[in-house]
Amino acid sequence: MINAHTGPQPADFADVRATNLAVVLRFVRDNAPCSRADIAASTGLNKATVSSLVADLIERRLLKETGLTENRVGRPATMLMLDGSPYAAVGIEVNVDYLTAVAVDLAGTELLSWRRAFPGATATPPQAIAAVAALARRVLGRMGKESRRVLGLSVAVPGLVDLGGCVRVAPNLGWRDVDLAGDLTKALRDPGFPVLVDNDGNLGALAEHRFGGSGGAANLVYLTGEVGVGAGVLMDGRLRRGGAGFAGEVGHIQIDPAGPRCRCGRHGCLEAVAGVGAVLRRTAPDATPAELEPEVDEVVRLARGGDAETLRSLESIGGDLGRGLAILANLLNPDVIVLGGYYVPLGEWMLPAARAELARGSVAPAGGGVRVEISALGHGAAALGAAARLLDSIDSGRLPA
Amino acid sequence: MINAHTGPQPADFADVRATNLAVVLRFVRDNAPCSRADIAASTGLNKATVSSLVADLIERRLLKETGLTENRVGRPATMLMLDGSPYAAVGIEVNVDYLTAVAVDLAGTELLSWRRAFPGATATPPQAIAAVAALARRVLGRMGKESRRVLGLSVAVPGLVDLGGCVRVAPNLGWRDVDLAGDLTKALRDPGFPVLVDNDGNLGALAEHRFGGSGGAANLVYLTGEVGVGAGVLMDGRLRRGGAGFAGEVGHIQIDPAGPRCRCGRHGCLEAVAGVGAVLRRTAPDATPAELEPEVDEVVRLARGGDAETLRSLESIGGDLGRGLAILANLLNPDVIVLGGYYVPLGEWMLPAARAELARGSVAPAGGGVRVEISALGHGAAALGAAARLLDSIDSGRLPA
Repeated sequence: MINAHTGPQPADFADVRATNLAVVLRFVRDNAPCSRADIAASTGLNKATVSSLVADLIERRLLKETGLTENRVGRPATMLMLDGSPYAAVGIEVNVDYLTAVAVDLAGTELLSWRRAFPGATATPPQAIAAVAALARRVLGRMGKESRRVLGLSVAVPGLVDLGGCVRVAPNLGWRDVDLAGDLTKALRDPGFPVLVDNDGNLGALAEHRFGGSGGAANLVYLTGEVGVGAGVLMDGRLRRGGAGFAGEVGHIQIDPAGPRCRCGRHGCLEAVAGVGAVLRRTAPDATPAELEPEVDEVVRLARGGDAETLRSLESIGGDLGRGLAILANLLNPDVIVLGGYYVPLGEWMLPAARAELARGSVAPAGGGVRVEISALGHGAAALGAAARLLDSIDSGRLPA
Repeated sequence: MINAHTGPQPADFADVRATNLAVVLRFVRDNAPCSRADIAASTGLNKATVSSLVADLIERRLLKETGLTENRVGRPATMLMLDGSPYAAVGIEVNVDYLTAVAVDLAGTELLSWRRAFPGATATPPQAIAAVAALARRVLGRMGKESRRVLGLSVAVPGLVDLGGCVRVAPNLGWRDVDLAGDLTKALRDPGFPVLVDNDGNLGALAEHRFGGSGGAANLVYLTGEVGVGAGVLMDGRLRRGGAGFAGEVGHIQIDPAGPRCRCGRHGCLEAVAGVGAVLRRTAPDATPAELEPEVDEVVRLARGGDAETLRSLESIGGDLGRGLAILANLLNPDVIVLGGYYVPLGEWMLPAARAELARGSVAPAGGGVRVEISALGHGAAALGAAARLLDSIDSGRLPA
């Protein structure tokens, strides 16, 4: 059958223009302040093309001239930097014990970052949608006051999200087949921008790639480290979602057939042996999800004080985590695995054992070069990544109309 | 720092031409025989551009006119199909118990497929290189007699191959840091075409993608099923190699901490619990690698005859394999996992238990839609994939000079 949708699509001159707009935009993002001549010299585009592209980007207020001139021999040059000030991208994360909201401008500058407690484990999906919509409306109100145009809202959820934005299963929220994108669009009364839904691990990985400390590694795995343990898998610079969008479910990989029962009903899952629940089960057996943050603070306090039992627990759980990391290293050979969420405060005492287990379990010499690092982004990562997902589309040359 | 190598590269008109040549070539591959008008209608390229692209491809003997005309209303049209007859791509696989060689033309038609016993477990690297070079020379001689230009030689190895073609570790061959690409180029006295080296799982995945029964699934994992168990991971239509090229080492993922010792020195690796070695350990404990094929034949004979002990063993090993497949399903959510090598003759009795374990261990409903299939390519897959790797570069528009 002859079908326009088989195989790669042809390139035309509009594609060339979009690609080159993206090249200029990303070059300025990485190198600002810089001149038109710098852009031409480094990208291989000719000066006339660069001038035309820059004019287009300035007109859409994606670039601006800084008025600065570089200290150089010869004529002074007008320097460029990112603008993007009239726009905003909004990300919200729903999790078991909190909601977060982040808004960024197109330069990636944070416009707001809010976090509030939220009873995710007990709220029904309609209650959760109402809470997310209320939070979104407050963010939109704020952006409106700042005369910013909102380019989109993207929501992070700790669960399996299909390619249409439907949450198929979110074990720790107790959700099944929730059309979050559709319901939220209705609750916001068709706000005139796209509402996207994605897995929190995927969005955390995007945030790490763009804003994290790993230098934009092209092969990166991000572990969420919340009540659930999910992952986002970035290979060759792009998020890899798998055939149905369910890739990255590292939390339910079986680490030990004889291990404890997981909330998903299986035994010895990574989440059950090395998630924050496993930590608290040993150190604070009566904690409930709503009390997670103070309980984790207490564990940190004990560890800082050198409490032997706490240190032993964290080391042992770090080793179990490392066995999961070895699976990631063997299968994906990322440049870096970044630990987020509650692994950020707890990682200091888990990392040595985790790294040792990764090296031991990796068939490639020296762990295949895989680094293990603690995220600098904390619990805001997924919401930040939700906003970053919207910036990625601008960066690929799909400019706002 | 301003650096020409940061960020994406700009597109220019040469890229557009290459992209469009690739679009036409792949369209004809998928839809031949077809006319220039069909290509224009389905790709969106205008007719003048299509005529110019087709002329270029005919001149390089990548396409040819078949002389047929389609049964249609209006003027008869000249139909096109792939040619590529003056070219050959050569693939060779080195494994523990055999060498294979495959040559294909640019249409993917097999020109030769040879297999011979080879003592890979005991041969030294220089002996192996000499044997591969001798086999390569015979293939090159045959291609010369057919007046075909060899576009490249690509070699598959069951081990960790770095991005420069050096075999870092091949546990079942006993190799460490063997510069196979370099040594082979020397042994062939600079043959005037590229010599590439890659992991057998990677190349098997390429072969499955192009020639296998899975309909060109964009997200595909191929398991080698030889003495070692390796994987090639294809996501979003491309092989994903990881940061250092070591992705896909599924064979050394720990399935059971209490499991048997693996040849890599660890315990309970997938290869140790569910590789062909695990099968023979139960059914033919005295087999050596040189005797693998007849021993596997004997297992198949017993299974066919309904031998209860053999069937029980294969079912149990199938279950262990399925626990490994569940890890792949959770982490990568491929469209399909294809089992190759010795899993081809043995799969019939292992698959039901393997599929059941995959479904049980997958957090996504219905195993996330992951299919598990037996390869139709058999032991020739890696060598065929090695040749296919060379075709892929033509298909992406990098035409022979």
